[in-house]
Amino acid sequence: MPNPTAAMLVIGDEILSGRTRDSNLWYLAGEMTRAGIDLAEARVVGDDHASIVAAVRALSAAHDYVFTSGGIGPTHDDITADAVAEALGAKIGHRPDAMALLKAHYERQGLPFNEARARMARIPDGAALIDNPISVAPGFILGNVHVMAGVPNIFEAMLASVMPRLTGGAPLLSQNLRVMRGEGEIAGEFGRLAADFPDLSMGSYPFQQSGAFGTNLVIRGTDPARIDQAMMRLVGLFG
Amino acid sequence: MPNPTAAMLVIGDEILSGRTRDSNLWYLAGEMTRAGIDLAEARVVGDDHASIVAAVRALSAAHDYVFTSGGIGPTHDDITADAVAEALGAKIGHRPDAMALLKAHYERQGLPFNEARARMARIPDGAALIDNPISVAPGFILGNVHVMAGVPNIFEAMLASVMPRLTGGAPLLSQNLRVMRGEGEIAGEFGRLAADFPDLSMGSYPFQQSGAFGTNLVIRGTDPARIDQAMMRLVGLFG
Repeated sequence: MPNPTAAMLVIGDEILSGRTRDSNLWYLAGEMTRAGIDLAEARVVGDDHASIVAAVRALSAAHDYVFTSGGIGPTHDDITADAVAEALGAKIGHRPDAMALLKAHYERQGLPFNEARARMARIPDGAALIDNPISVAPGFILGNVHVMAGVPNIFEAMLASVMPRLTGGAPLLSQNLRVMRGEGEIAGEFGRLAADFPDLSMGSYPFQQSGAFGTNLVIRGTDPARIDQAMMRLVGLFG
Repeated sequence: MPNPTAAMLVIGDEILSGRTRDSNLWYLAGEMTRAGIDLAEARVVGDDHASIVAAVRALSAAHDYVFTSGGIGPTHDDITADAVAEALGAKIGHRPDAMALLKAHYERQGLPFNEARARMARIPDGAALIDNPISVAPGFILGNVHVMAGVPNIFEAMLASVMPRLTGGAPLLSQNLRVMRGEGEIAGEFGRLAADFPDLSMGSYPFQQSGAFGTNLVIRGTDPARIDQAMMRLVGLFG
C-alpha cells in the first residue's frame, strides 16, 4: 500500500518579500519522512484571501493531509482561519472553547483580553483545536487541513501535538555515499543502477570542495533490505 | 501601473524529503523585491514529470515571469528541461550551441564528454541559454520560464545574468519598527493605521526575547513618501 500523501501551504507576505526565510517547510519535511507520509508538494502564498482559499481547496482535494503555517495571530493581516473556513465551506466565529482558553491566559498574565486578542478565537465550526503550549492561541484541524502558527517554535510545538493523530506508512529511509567524482562521470552507471531498483528512489547532489567536484549519492526507500542491496552495488561501482 | 508578477517553482525530491533546506526561494524573493517584481507565489514539487509539467503550465499562465530551480544536471533524476519543453509545447533535443559549450569545457578539463554530460545540452527549441559561469552547463529561458540550477551558488550566478533582462517596476521598500509589546496589544491601532493606508502593506511579526514578547511592525510599499508618512504615525502610536 502506498504511503499517505501530504502537502504544505506556507502563508505570508514576509516569505515572498524575502524578509523572512521559511524554516517550517524544511522542519515538516523531516517529520513527514520519519512518519512515512509522502510530502508531495508545497506552496507559498501571500496574505491574500483568494490565494489562500484556492490553494487550500486544491491541496485538500489532492492529498491525505494538508499543513498550513502562518496567519493565525491577532493582527489585520492574519486571515488564514477565515480563508480555510471558506475553502472548506465551514462557518466561522469566536468559538467559546477558544475564547475560554485565551481569556484565562490573559487573565493569568494580567493583560487585557481585547478585541484583537479575541480574533485568535475565530475557529471554524467543527474544527478540533491544536494545543499551543507556547502562546496559548490554538491552531485547528478542519477536515484534512491542519492550521498552525508561522513562528517556528510554535509551529514545531503544534506539529508535535498533531503527529500522534496522523496515520503514517513505512518511514522513508535513506543511505548516502559520498564520492569525489563529478556527477557527469558517475551518471551513466548510477542511472542504470536506479533502473534496476524501480522500487527505490535514487538522487545525486553535486558539491564542490577545495575546487574539486564531488557528488552525494542518495538511495531512498521504505525497505531497508532493498536499500542495503542497492547500496552494496553502489559501493562496488564507486566506493 | 501594478508591478509585474513572478512565481517560483522549486524542483527536487531532496527538498520534500527534508534532506536539503532550500535557499533559492529566499534568495529570489530578495532579488525580486529589489527589482520591483511582485513574487506572488511559489511551489515545490518532486522529481516527477507530470507534477513539473502541471506546475509550469499553471504558473506560466498566471504570471509575467516564472523561475525554476533544480533538475538540470546529468543524472537520470534531472528531468526539468524535458518537462518544461512539454509544458510549453516545445521540441527538445541536444542543441548544437549547448553541445559546443560543454564539449569545449570538458576538453579543457581533460574529462570525457560522455552521454550523461551531453544530457545537459538538452535544451528546448527556441529557448535562449542562460550563462553558467561556475560549471558551464547552461540554464535556459523558454517563453516566460527561466530554468536554472538548484545548487545555490550556480542558481545565484544564473539569476545575476538573467536580472538585467527583466522589466521591473518600482522596488518594494520597507521600514520596520521594533516594539517590546505583544502583537495583541498593538493589533487594534495597527489595523486602523493599515486601513488608512490601503496603498501600503503592513505586517506584524512577533518575537520573544528574554521571556518578553515583542513585535516587529513592517510597512511595505513603493512610494517612499507614503511609507514615511505611515511610519511617523506608527512611531507616534508605539515609538
